[in-house]
Amino acid sequence: MKKIGLAIHGGAGTIRRSTMSRLLEKEYRKGLEKALKSGWNVLEKGGSSIDAVCESVISMENNPLFNAGKGSVFTHEGKNEMDAAIMNGVNLENGAVAGVTGIKNPILLAKCVMEKSEFSLLCGKGAEKFAKKNKLTFEPKEYFYTEKRWNQLQKAIKTGQAFLDHTNFEDIKKKEKYYGTVGAVALDSNGNLAAATSTGGMTNKMFGRIGDSPLNGIGNYADNNSLAISCTGSGEYFIKLTVAYRISALMTYKKMSLKKAADYVINKKLIEIGGDGGIIAIDKKGNIVLCFNSEGMYRGYVNEKEKFVGIY
Amino acid sequence: MKKIGLAIHGGAGTIRRSTMSRLLEKEYRKGLEKALKSGWNVLEKGGSSIDAVCESVISMENNPLFNAGKGSVFTHEGKNEMDAAIMNGVNLENGAVAGVTGIKNPILLAKCVMEKSEFSLLCGKGAEKFAKKNKLTFEPKEYFYTEKRWNQLQKAIKTGQAFLDHTNFEDIKKKEKYYGTVGAVALDSNGNLAAATSTGGMTNKMFGRIGDSPLNGIGNYADNNSLAISCTGSGEYFIKLTVAYRISALMTYKKMSLKKAADYVINKKLIEIGGDGGIIAIDKKGNIVLCFNSEGMYRGYVNEKEKFVGIY
Repeated sequence: MKKIGLAIHGGAGTIRRSTMSRLLEKEYRKGLEKALKSGWNVLEKGGSSIDAVCESVISMENNPLFNAGKGSVFTHEGKNEMDAAIMNGVNLENGAVAGVTGIKNPILLAKCVMEKSEFSLLCGKGAEKFAKKNKLTFEPKEYFYTEKRWNQLQKAIKTGQAFLDHTNFEDIKKKEKYYGTVGAVALDSNGNLAAATSTGGMTNKMFGRIGDSPLNGIGNYADNNSLAISCTGSGEYFIKLTVAYRISALMTYKKMSLKKAADYVINKKLIEIGGDGGIIAIDKKGNIVLCFNSEGMYRGYVNEKEKFVGIY
Repeated sequence: MKKIGLAIHGGAGTIRRSTMSRLLEKEYRKGLEKALKSGWNVLEKGGSSIDAVCESVISMENNPLFNAGKGSVFTHEGKNEMDAAIMNGVNLENGAVAGVTGIKNPILLAKCVMEKSEFSLLCGKGAEKFAKKNKLTFEPKEYFYTEKRWNQLQKAIKTGQAFLDHTNFEDIKKKEKYYGTVGAVALDSNGNLAAATSTGGMTNKMFGRIGDSPLNGIGNYADNNSLAISCTGSGEYFIKLTVAYRISALMTYKKMSLKKAADYVINKKLIEIGGDGGIIAIDKKGNIVLCFNSEGMYRGYVNEKEKFVGIY
C-alpha cells in the first residue's frame, strides 16, 4: 500500500509558553487534533487529498480559536474579510477567493472556484455573487463575532494609528501577532498531493489588503512532481520570495530534498529579508516538513506510523 | 558605460495580419514606438529602471488602443476594473492593485503601494481609498469609455451567455481575443532591473476575477540576480505555472540562459497545459527576450544598438 500523510498548521508567530494559559494551550491542542482527525478520516478510507485538506481546513475554519472562517479577525471597518486558496497537485488546477464576507467556509468557495469556474482567483462582492450562485453556506455577521477578536481590533485601532506608521505596524506584526492562517497539505493513496490555506487576514486591516494566502504559487501550492505546501507568516515577505513555488523549484530544478529546500527558504532567504513565519509541506514520497523561523507555529501531522501536535 | 535596455508589450493573442487594417497596424506601431521612447528617455538620462517601466506603461495606459487604463475593456456590469503590478529588482519590493475603478494610471497606484505602504497587493474599494489618500489622479467614467470596447462587451454578452459555458468562454478567449495587457521591463545604468504590468482584464469579466497581471511572482517579477519579466496571455494558465518566477528559478537554480528558460516555459510547459500568450524579459546583462506562443504579440525593445517594434 502506498504511503499517505497529512500536515496542518493554525498560524505562526510570537507564540510563547510563558504567555499561554494551560487551558488555552489545551484548547489549541484539541483543535489541532480534531483538524488532523477530520482530514485523516478521508485519507484512511482511500479518499482524495483534495477532500482531506478541505476537511482539515473546515475543522479549523469552524473553530473560533483560529484566524479563519468563524474566528476571523476584524478589518479596520469592523468587517471579517476572508481569503482562501486550494490547489490540486494532479493537474495544477487551483481556485482562490480574496476579501470575501459572510461565507461560512471560504475554503469550500475556493474549491468551488477551482471546480466550477474557468477562473483562478475571485475577489470581494464578485466572489460572493459566485458563492450565492453556487449555493455556498452564508452566515450572518454575528456568527463571525468573537469578543477576543473585537477587543484585538479596538487595541489595534488605538495603537495602530495610521498604517503608514512603520513602528506601530511592526508592533502589531511582530510583538502582538495579530494575524494568523490555517492550512493543510496531504498525500493520498493514489499518490496525489493537495494543499489548502484559509485566513481572516490582519486585525485592523486597511485598504483591501490581500496577503499571500489566496495566491496559489506564493502562499499555497501543490504539484504531484514535487510537494504540497501551505504558508503562514508575514505575507508581504512571502510574496517577495514567491515562497511556495520557490521551494518546489529548488526540489525540481536543484534536486534539493523537501527538508533542505524548506530550511533554505524559511531559515535563510526569508530571514535575510526580515520575514517571519513558516510552512507545512509534504512531498510525493510522504516526507513531511513543519518548518518555521518564528517563536511558534500551531502545527501537527499524521501518517500511518505516527501523530504529532506542537505549538512552540 | 554599463548596458541599458527596455522591452515592452501591449498584449498577445490571435492577432493576424489578414484581419488587421493598414491604418490600425500603423496606429499600434506608433503607440508602441511612443511607449518605447517614454521609457528610453528615462534610461538614457541615467534614470532608474523603475521610472522607465512606469513611463512606458503610462504611455500605453493613456492610449485607447491598449487594454489598460483609458482603453480598458468593460466587465459584465459595464465597469472598467483595472489591475497593475510593479516590482523593483534591487530589493524585491513590489506593489500591486486589483479591481480598481476610476484611476487614470493604475501603474502609478501600484508604485504608490510599493513605496508608501507596508503591503503588496490592495484590492477594489480599499485600494481606491488608498489612492485618494495619496492623491492619485482619478478620471470620470466617460474617460474610460471607448465605443470599440463597449461594442465588444455587447457582443460578449450576446455570445458569452454564462461564463460556465466552456465552449463560449473558449470562444471569447481564443478566437476573439477579448483580453490584453501592457507591460515593460528595463535594465538601468546602475544594473538595476524593474518590471511593470497593467491591464483592463477581460471583456464581460464576472465575479471579481483577478488574473495573473497584478500577481508579482506570477504575471510580473524582477530580481537583480536574474531578470525582469512581464507576462500577457491566458492568466489562469500563467497562475498554474507561476510563470514569471519559474523563468527566474530556471535561470538561478538550473543555470539556464534567459532565452532558454523563457522558451522552455512558454513554448513547452505552457503549451502542454493549453495556455497561450507570451512574455517580455531582460536579464542583468541586458539580454532581451520577446517570446510568445500565440499568433501575435504587440511588442518592442530598445537598447544602445537597436530598436525593434513588432506585432505578428
